[in-house]
Amino acid sequence: MNTMKRDRQFRPLPVPSVDIHGLFGDRQEAICDTTAEMLLDRCVEAGMLDAIDTSKPSPGIVIPIQPWGGTTQMFWDSDLGKSIETVAYSLYRRKNPELEARVDEIIDMYGKMQDEDGYLNAWFQRVQPDRRWTNLRDHHELYCAGHLIEGAVAYFQATGKRKLLDIVSRYADYLIKTFGRGEGQLRGYCGHEEIELALVKLARVTGQKKYLHLCKFFIDERGTEPHYFTEEAIRDGRDPANFIQKTYEYSQSHQPVREQRKVVGHAVRAMYLYCGMADIATEYNDDSLTAALDTLWDDLITKQMYLTGGIGPAVSNEGFTDYYDLPNESAYAETCASVGLVFWASRMLGRGPNRRYADIMEQALYNGAMSGLSLDGKTFFYENPLESAGNHHRWIWHPCPCCPPNIARLLASIGSYMYAVSDDEIAVHLYGESQARFDIGGAKVRLAEKTHYPWDGAIGFDVTTDRTTRFAISLRIPEWADGVTLKVNGETIDLASVTIDGYARIDRDWTSGDHIDLDIPLAPRALFANPLVRHDAGRTALMRGPMVYCVEATDNGDGLNGIRLTSGVSQTTMAELKDLGGAVALDVPASRDKADWGDALYRTKPPETEEATVRFVPYPFWDNRSPGEMLVWVRAGERNDA
Amino acid sequence: MNTMKRDRQFRPLPVPSVDIHGLFGDRQEAICDTTAEMLLDRCVEAGMLDAIDTSKPSPGIVIPIQPWGGTTQMFWDSDLGKSIETVAYSLYRRKNPELEARVDEIIDMYGKMQDEDGYLNAWFQRVQPDRRWTNLRDHHELYCAGHLIEGAVAYFQATGKRKLLDIVSRYADYLIKTFGRGEGQLRGYCGHEEIELALVKLARVTGQKKYLHLCKFFIDERGTEPHYFTEEAIRDGRDPANFIQKTYEYSQSHQPVREQRKVVGHAVRAMYLYCGMADIATEYNDDSLTAALDTLWDDLITKQMYLTGGIGPAVSNEGFTDYYDLPNESAYAETCASVGLVFWASRMLGRGPNRRYADIMEQALYNGAMSGLSLDGKTFFYENPLESAGNHHRWIWHPCPCCPPNIARLLASIGSYMYAVSDDEIAVHLYGESQARFDIGGAKVRLAEKTHYPWDGAIGFDVTTDRTTRFAISLRIPEWADGVTLKVNGETIDLASVTIDGYARIDRDWTSGDHIDLDIPLAPRALFANPLVRHDAGRTALMRGPMVYCVEATDNGDGLNGIRLTSGVSQTTMAELKDLGGAVALDVPASRDKADWGDALYRTKPPETEEATVRFVPYPFWDNRSPGEMLVWVRAGERNDA
Repeated sequence: MNTMKRDRQFRPLPVPSVDIHGLFGDRQEAICDTTAEMLLDRCVEAGMLDAIDTSKPSPGIVIPIQPWGGTTQMFWDSDLGKSIETVAYSLYRRKNPELEARVDEIIDMYGKMQDEDGYLNAWFQRVQPDRRWTNLRDHHELYCAGHLIEGAVAYFQATGKRKLLDIVSRYADYLIKTFGRGEGQLRGYCGHEEIELALVKLARVTGQKKYLHLCKFFIDERGTEPHYFTEEAIRDGRDPANFIQKTYEYSQSHQPVREQRKVVGHAVRAMYLYCGMADIATEYNDDSLTAALDTLWDDLITKQMYLTGGIGPAVSNEGFTDYYDLPNESAYAETCASVGLVFWASRMLGRGPNRRYADIMEQALYNGAMSGLSLDGKTFFYENPLESAGNHHRWIWHPCPCCPPNIARLLASIGSYMYAVSDDEIAVHLYGESQARFDIGGAKVRLAEKTHYPWDGAIGFDVTTDRTTRFAISLRIPEWADGVTLKVNGETIDLASVTIDGYARIDRDWTSGDHIDLDIPLAPRALFANPLVRHDAGRTALMRGPMVYCVEATDNGDGLNGIRLTSGVSQTTMAELKDLGGAVALDVPASRDKADWGDALYRTKPPETEEATVRFVPYPFWDNRSPGEMLVWVRAGERNDA
Repeated sequence: MNTMKRDRQFRPLPVPSVDIHGLFGDRQEAICDTTAEMLLDRCVEAGMLDAIDTSKPSPGIVIPIQPWGGTTQMFWDSDLGKSIETVAYSLYRRKNPELEARVDEIIDMYGKMQDEDGYLNAWFQRVQPDRRWTNLRDHHELYCAGHLIEGAVAYFQATGKRKLLDIVSRYADYLIKTFGRGEGQLRGYCGHEEIELALVKLARVTGQKKYLHLCKFFIDERGTEPHYFTEEAIRDGRDPANFIQKTYEYSQSHQPVREQRKVVGHAVRAMYLYCGMADIATEYNDDSLTAALDTLWDDLITKQMYLTGGIGPAVSNEGFTDYYDLPNESAYAETCASVGLVFWASRMLGRGPNRRYADIMEQALYNGAMSGLSLDGKTFFYENPLESAGNHHRWIWHPCPCCPPNIARLLASIGSYMYAVSDDEIAVHLYGESQARFDIGGAKVRLAEKTHYPWDGAIGFDVTTDRTTRFAISLRIPEWADGVTLKVNGETIDLASVTIDGYARIDRDWTSGDHIDLDIPLAPRALFANPLVRHDAGRTALMRGPMVYCVEATDNGDGLNGIRLTSGVSQTTMAELKDLGGAVALDVPASRDKADWGDALYRTKPPETEEATVRFVPYPFWDNRSPGEMLVWVRAGERNDA
């Protein structure tokens, strides 16, 4: 396969530059209809506005972080920040003056609360003012700042209103004074990464490089010796060894980031760190960071990722364990972690299109991430197991409500993950019915994408330009697709000759009326796991396009582990499911263990089997009808009688 | 199958009446060599003797029960009681004046510590003297009494020394005054059952029915309303609803015991309760208890038991969860719980031989229980999973050291589980090289059992009597055995005509020189689990005789889930393993996934397979060579490519 030099700089298309229809359009409609407002409602119910309302008394203390409960929490600013961000994206799609007014009110509160020096944090201004910057390791202080910045950037882009952007810029200016290698400055960084990627967004929207520099400082300092968290603990009179996770791997601060080779610790923290590293790699063309990230990427993708793009199997550290340890029923695979993987993958595309990242971005987006939000936008998964005995069901809210706004802000801003642009190239990373507007080579270009992807692989692009301009359009050719065809203005393109890093790159003069036809066959395929994944041995999982499939009790009855795929997917038929947003189901002939086994728990005769047709539905759409058993990895093979 | 009326009363043969050789002899040798002394050493190291030494200051408080640690614990008396019991049984087998002197010293301390009223408890005399009888639900107070009683009975039988027996009798007399339905008495019972079965032992050894009455009181009161634990909590100023497990099911006190239909809660507690119930059913010929026990037995055996006789899958309550919830790798299946199941099964035989109980007793004994002790008697499993990724290994000791003395006292007293006797019948429940002495029908009878069981199914009995006497000998014919043959003095007995409840009952005049030949073919067999056990779907487990088999990495390399039994057990060959105490290994042709899969985590091509011979070893003997992967339920079937 051809490759390109990696000194290019691709940046995501701003969210307002893309109109979304199709599957993602439906999800965005649900967010506009329901989720965005609900996020604010739930933040209010939890007491988050009281926490930042300086006209009210301090919300008071409160057990920090654990146990969850209706108590003020150190990371509430982050929930508000992500909720504001979601609302902002929803306003791009659909005006909602009432919702906008509610956010303006929150912004006013933050304005009033902000310290004269620029500092802004509900917990450390209102609950424990004497504890500012005393425990970067555990206190989520810069993490909260990061989410407020992200919210501010999105809200500015959505509404043109600068107030929150100005507030967080003042805060960031204060951070620049506070953190650094100079006399009296703190050489620290946050135990929960997030501020890094937020500062890059702030730099991009304000054009202020100083925020990039602070981000790079946090990245460069992380994990260096003498260890900041250790010295900080001693200064604070705490035992540096006595903390919940007892390892700096938990916060990826066990080594300088360029020396890290293994994806470890808390999954969301890891993803957010890698996002910041990738952004800095792009902005500074920093090959040392890119090299570390490529090693970490391989480590994650080849040893630690569920087929769904779920990551972080363990609840104990909300994160990574041993290689190939991917239990299905007890999978933690937090929605936020898959969202974070999408974020990271998207940023790995900053130095040029490469399906090595984009294929995984799509896989994590459609499966491990999108499963976190119900079709109606009203309920949420925190954990995303690949098997359920029927005891998993999306909930209305969570005491640690990180996932709801995280999946909502991702889906509401999906346009910026679909399209990216450099000086002379448009990259189409994800497909879906949409219109995208670009400024490239001095021209205004519009791509109108017509498709029913991911349910159908026929994709057409109509190009409109204000003048004929030379640039490249790079279209991802998924690695899983066989028999892809590409035509420009009706003329077949030899894919092999134009494909670079898995993208068909059409570099030519483009003019209005040009048309691209891309056809990506979506044949169902049976996947197998590396034998080192003991949990999936002898099992197979179905995919079609980017979508992982599963069986649910609501279609197939209980006893899903009694299903055996005896003839693969060769005789699959498809059906459109009206009650699942037009999703395509796969009906597959299979063998099933008969239920009439009798009372014995064990016996020497294997279960009798019968032929059956089993219905597979897209994994992200499970638990949208009735709760019950669910299974991704079904048994493969012909007979189970030894 | 013929059945007998259940108004008979069988009692286990006293431990000193049986000499043990063969496999159990080896285990007892290890206990005499090592375990018995080690138990005392570890109790001393933990500080248990300081806790009862009244010449020393109170050991002081201390977080009760949780978290475990090197702190005084409420249930230390029970650890000492079980250790004394183990030492006592070891002294039957082999005199050890030094060990006996150490126990005498402990007994002297208990004698000095005992309150004038008879009360005896290290924690509530030395640490929290004002808390006596304030929280029967959580404080293990009567549980500790029970284990001291069991230790006293065993030590008296072993040495003839009455001191500890007198101490605990005084304590039991005090309990009779304290507990009851009279004015000023407590109508309570212990949250952790144990005192019940201990009182039966005390009654049997002393001939004092009053101890049976107290046991029956505890059984009858349990779970009645108004609920003792609720009233006690209110009296004590505690919120009755606020306790760790938040359900009286945890302690099987959610209903009167005769109304209980489902095995619930903490597994060891459940087993010990059922033991007490079964003893009372035997002693009082109480059909209402027997009926409840039979329902509970079915519930456990048909819905909640691992193939190994492990019970209680969950760590969260150390107990039972949902029906058919039997995860293999995360199985709790505490050694103590399987020991408790052996205890219960043994007592279900009190009303007559029945293989319905004895088969399970043997299965739990050989597998889930015996796996708890290493072959050298030096290390212990607390949990007994049926699959390991290599991260399970027996430990030297445990902060909650209930399992080590529990499995040790069971194995050291195994003779009393092998043989039982009524007025006119000897029952042989378990087979193994041994000599047993009976008083029956006024005669002294000796059975000399010659066999290499469980490795070989040929079993011979030489009968010696001091005079010709009529009685029955009932020999268990395991349900799993095909083609069993039985001869008396060379003459073949028609099994169908003499088998009652799964026992061949030979009722005749017995005289010295009589000889019985029983042959139980031990063909390896492949077992399958009820399809409702989702964890075992498409899998098979091998057994031979009572022994469950497993594969270990030390014999087969890693990747045990890559093994598929393709032709069952028909081509099995056997090998004797010198390094595993002469255990018989099964070498079985199988197919294995090849390791040369490459780097990808997932792909559309199934793993290639190769033919291999796989070695299965007895499950209880796993982790006696080197730590590593282990698996009981291997994949069954021919191909895994869908």
